Amino acid sequence: MVYTTFDELIAAAKSKPHTARMAVAAAGDSHTIEAVLRAREEGIVSPILVGDKTVIDEALAEFGATVPEEDIYDVPDLAESARKAVALVVEGKADFLMKGKLDTAVLLKAVVNKEHGLGQGRTMSHFTMFQVPGYHKLMVPVDGGMVTYPTLEQKKDIIMNTVDTLRSMGYDNPKVGVLACVEKVNPKMPETVEADALKQMNLKGEIPGCVVEGPISYDCATVKEIADFKGFHSPCAGDCDVLVAPNIHAGNIMGKMLACTCGAKMAGFIVGAKCPIVMTSRGSTPEEKYLAIVISALAAEKRAQH
Amino acid sequence: MVYTTFDELIAAAKSKPHTARMAVAAAGDSHTIEAVLRAREEGIVSPILVGDKTVIDEALAEFGATVPEEDIYDVPDLAESARKAVALVVEGKADFLMKGKLDTAVLLKAVVNKEHGLGQGRTMSHFTMFQVPGYHKLMVPVDGGMVTYPTLEQKKDIIMNTVDTLRSMGYDNPKVGVLACVEKVNPKMPETVEADALKQMNLKGEIPGCVVEGPISYDCATVKEIADFKGFHSPCAGDCDVLVAPNIHAGNIMGKMLACTCGAKMAGFIVGAKCPIVMTSRGSTPEEKYLAIVISALAAEKRAQH
Repeated sequence: MVYTTFDELIAAAKSKPHTARMAVAAAGDSHTIEAVLRAREEGIVSPILVGDKTVIDEALAEFGATVPEEDIYDVPDLAESARKAVALVVEGKADFLMKGKLDTAVLLKAVVNKEHGLGQGRTMSHFTMFQVPGYHKLMVPVDGGMVTYPTLEQKKDIIMNTVDTLRSMGYDNPKVGVLACVEKVNPKMPETVEADALKQMNLKGEIPGCVVEGPISYDCATVKEIADFKGFHSPCAGDCDVLVAPNIHAGNIMGKMLACTCGAKMAGFIVGAKCPIVMTSRGSTPEEKYLAIVISALAAEKRAQH
Repeated sequence: MVYTTFDELIAAAKSKPHTARMAVAAAGDSHTIEAVLRAREEGIVSPILVGDKTVIDEALAEFGATVPEEDIYDVPDLAESARKAVALVVEGKADFLMKGKLDTAVLLKAVVNKEHGLGQGRTMSHFTMFQVPGYHKLMVPVDGGMVTYPTLEQKKDIIMNTVDTLRSMGYDNPKVGVLACVEKVNPKMPETVEADALKQMNLKGEIPGCVVEGPISYDCATVKEIADFKGFHSPCAGDCDVLVAPNIHAGNIMGKMLACTCGAKMAGFIVGAKCPIVMTSRGSTPEEKYLAIVISALAAEKRAQH
């Protein structure tokens, strides 16, 4: 299974047998509440709102909505609301987490807490998914928001986080391209050496559940005709689901070029912890927040079954 | 002056008072000849063809065209044809250079030759210009093809090469954004430190003829509304002409994403030598080669006046 549009993902999320329970830290934010309510109306999530109850109630009233009293936790302090939301997941009362109106660093601190947090010993990374007018299926460039200069080991983690997420959404065997400016291994370009190392790990079964190709240039990764012309043969040629950027700058430029210049729609969340973490930025529209909730709920499906 | 489309550049090239003389190394290639003849018909260049005369004549015959005998140099050996084409520029018989059907390395060897070459003590870089459906003017991402991991000094050279080229095309004061994933200087991210250093050099007059902003993220560099939302104020916000990539991988991904996914048209050539060097790849269409000739001819205008 491979998804072509977000509508397909939304339909899949709506038809899940289990409604994922989502804990929202510092939930008192109009855009956040709007997105949460839309996902709730569509049966995609069952929200648990943590934060300043007065502010949450005001935001709910803005949309003429209510939430059962037991699903609101009155925790006005931001750091405390982050800890409480994380605790709800740890205690099995929620399946995944969403960041409301608080700094990313504050939520992450609660997430990575050794004793009470959600770490699982793997580097966390930013999973982003784009519906791109110029591409034949959803494109997943990683990582443009979390890991700055990934080591080989961290790149492996990024790929595994991403592939596990796609598989939990229904993908069978995602195609992963590790990007560089060329297709040949060049000892003067460490990115090409590491891309090849990741491909070898995949062939040896150390990165399972996907096909990894690299080094591969963006054109060979996304346009079959160009790959053919260059004599570059691979199941990933022109058909990559996942594009692994050399570092955060390249990944960030990719994602922003897709959104700002290519007219792509974006959804993303943090992967690598024990559950998906919806962590959209201040500037995200309710639509972007909603899509992030949808794909996170889908990825949290396995947790929701327990 | 700022250009919005390639058509504007073509019109400017057609109306130049001087026809630039272009020496083509290893000219016996059908796509190359097609592009050269089109530019000649439009009065944009006066070509001098260097290479195996039999093959050149065949390629010309394919388009029912001829070239004055004195404008063909019969030099069948590839390395020798590169040296001869370079010599024509050095001797003042040609204003700029084009690569025909030979390896880039062979032509570059002749170009960088200390005694007989075209070097001018500055790092050479790849100048690329894109007409992007999603952007309000031509976009110039650099460098995605030449300098692999530019040092601060090399980034300065890349900017100066690019700005000099744009100014020779008619731009007044190009806006240059030095890209990173954030807008703040972060000592843990050398790209942000160097971007700020380049901005300071510009403010001190060490990089003249342009406005340099950095570090700047791709969204702030290309979308004014996002920059405003983020509180990022700069004359470059949402209006960059030039986008400086952190390294060749990021630059390459940018250019290829524009061409393969955003539906952009591309033209490029090598800058930083004593004259423009048209160096399109094997896979370039005659249209791409033609556009590269057009912008190079425009950039060579000052030389052509002598």
